[in-house]
Amino acid sequence: MTTLAGDPLGTHRVLAPKGALPQPAERLDNDLSKVYATEIVVDVQTLNVDAASFRQMEEASGGNPDGVAALVLETVKRRGKQHNPVTGSGGMLLGVVERVGDLAAARGFVPGDRVATLISLSLTPLWLDRVLAVRPASAQLDVVGKAAVFLTAPIARIPTDMPERLVLALLDVAGAAPQVARLCGPGDSVVVLGAGGKSGLLCAAEARRRVGDTGKVIGIESFPAYADDLRALGICDHVATLDARDPLAVRDAVAPLTEGRGADLVLSCVNVPGVELAAILAARDRGKVYYFAMSTSFTAAALGAEGIGRDVDLFIGNGYAHDHAEHTLSLVRGSRPLHDLMQRRYT
Amino acid sequence: MTTLAGDPLGTHRVLAPKGALPQPAERLDNDLSKVYATEIVVDVQTLNVDAASFRQMEEASGGNPDGVAALVLETVKRRGKQHNPVTGSGGMLLGVVERVGDLAAARGFVPGDRVATLISLSLTPLWLDRVLAVRPASAQLDVVGKAAVFLTAPIARIPTDMPERLVLALLDVAGAAPQVARLCGPGDSVVVLGAGGKSGLLCAAEARRRVGDTGKVIGIESFPAYADDLRALGICDHVATLDARDPLAVRDAVAPLTEGRGADLVLSCVNVPGVELAAILAARDRGKVYYFAMSTSFTAAALGAEGIGRDVDLFIGNGYAHDHAEHTLSLVRGSRPLHDLMQRRYT
Repeated sequence: MTTLAGDPLGTHRVLAPKGALPQPAERLDNDLSKVYATEIVVDVQTLNVDAASFRQMEEASGGNPDGVAALVLETVKRRGKQHNPVTGSGGMLLGVVERVGDLAAARGFVPGDRVATLISLSLTPLWLDRVLAVRPASAQLDVVGKAAVFLTAPIARIPTDMPERLVLALLDVAGAAPQVARLCGPGDSVVVLGAGGKSGLLCAAEARRRVGDTGKVIGIESFPAYADDLRALGICDHVATLDARDPLAVRDAVAPLTEGRGADLVLSCVNVPGVELAAILAARDRGKVYYFAMSTSFTAAALGAEGIGRDVDLFIGNGYAHDHAEHTLSLVRGSRPLHDLMQRRYT
Repeated sequence: MTTLAGDPLGTHRVLAPKGALPQPAERLDNDLSKVYATEIVVDVQTLNVDAASFRQMEEASGGNPDGVAALVLETVKRRGKQHNPVTGSGGMLLGVVERVGDLAAARGFVPGDRVATLISLSLTPLWLDRVLAVRPASAQLDVVGKAAVFLTAPIARIPTDMPERLVLALLDVAGAAPQVARLCGPGDSVVVLGAGGKSGLLCAAEARRRVGDTGKVIGIESFPAYADDLRALGICDHVATLDARDPLAVRDAVAPLTEGRGADLVLSCVNVPGVELAAILAARDRGKVYYFAMSTSFTAAALGAEGIGRDVDLFIGNGYAHDHAEHTLSLVRGSRPLHDLMQRRYT
């Protein structure tokens, strides 16, 4: 068995197009019998598919879980990675370290460690033998397969004080809460679109502890059961049961709660297209709008703000922030009601 | 002739889908014989098409200007606006005020004023009688037509001390320089991808006056003639002739100029897909990346940063900022070489 060096960014796995990095690449080499010194190889047990991608595959297969499994197998066979060709998004995975390349040894992982990748499946070389089960409630698939993790790609050891599936579900959106912590402070007003969903709940909980008693957290959630869960948590000052795709309804709900100015910070956590303008209309002049959902359209946000003359800062959600895994797990550890809701819903 | 009130955001012009705002709408009512109190109606003389959109239409018609004209006429007929269905982008227009609705009178415009819209064509109801000429160098079309400007949509009176076509070309990217002014300060290192193009030149010039002598402006430009123009202006400390779609080449050019750290601020002004990762790799840890080009992919940026574990702030370029028209015109007025280059190239 020859050991190859490999590039820290993983360009050695790119088959097409030439010169691309692994994420935008059309196709990766998923032959995991090749040994690279910069890689950690993981025995994959669970795929946690990005919510926008899972929804698209469900719709494409008429809600049939077997259809989702077939689409995942087809994508992985064709692209060498679970990179949804329609949504452009991926997800992450959970498994056990099988081997650690020499140049990756300093990262401190050893064979047998239970780990989760903190990077997108859209750039992770993946080989699947088969799909054992599809769980629509959590957008997860149980699988038998292998994956390679590059030197620059963050992964995390699974903590033992929380159920594994819960950890995986949380790590998939681990970037959300740390970004919120940076973007708001005491006294701020914060609107969360899709506040009852997974990343929405984390954003609302983080905003609550940042803005304090003098600040205001406003949750917008279209699904009544999720809105009820959100109210029961008691982390929002106001919860409106509204479809965030209706920009005028969102604006009219937020305006009276912010003295007509709009919010200091708006977080869009809705995994469907068409919420860009609602987020912009909910923000105050010179406010911030942060888009976490992969279904966000760059041009709809950019041209939407311009078209209505709104001078706001628009952010693309970065799934990575320093110490994001520990930040998010600790946020959920610190709130029993949030922990229990997450566990009930996503595992 | 009945006068209708109309909505400040222009929802009264949306034909499909119901409840949408004008920008994301599939189709607008471009019957400009209808009179709305919130609208200013403009006799349109010139369309300044967004660069990404113009390039796409040129490619689709094999480089034939008549083909571009036909595509514009077809889009306007079908959608009631010049909203490129492939790129999702628009541009802006120049003309003469024909009538001012009662509720728009306070904006201070009167019939006969020469004006430019500062909003996207993708949300402007437009009626075209015909196209008189297509000018590929400036991505402009001379036309006979009419447009409606909503109450919330910024427009500007054309100054008389600069050629009109130059003003139009500059206003189309008026948001760029004011955003750069906010994002960098003395001593910062700034990388501009596509620094020799229209918005790139404005960004580089603004960065130069913000970062001062202790800062550094690095221009990346793939087109040799544009790179030469940029060098001749003397606003960059370094100009590299490179294709910004090559992330590793960009990283390797920027690293030695920033002590291996990467830049404090990276501005992406390249109007082709596939530069998201290059921009991220050129930025330092906790640096800022601002995407101005409408060809930017939200998911490529979000997942790209995550996949290589880069903790950077990613911004969607907002085409609107307060006083952006005056800011940009004054930047160009203040530099004769920049003014002359812009006039030579874009008029």
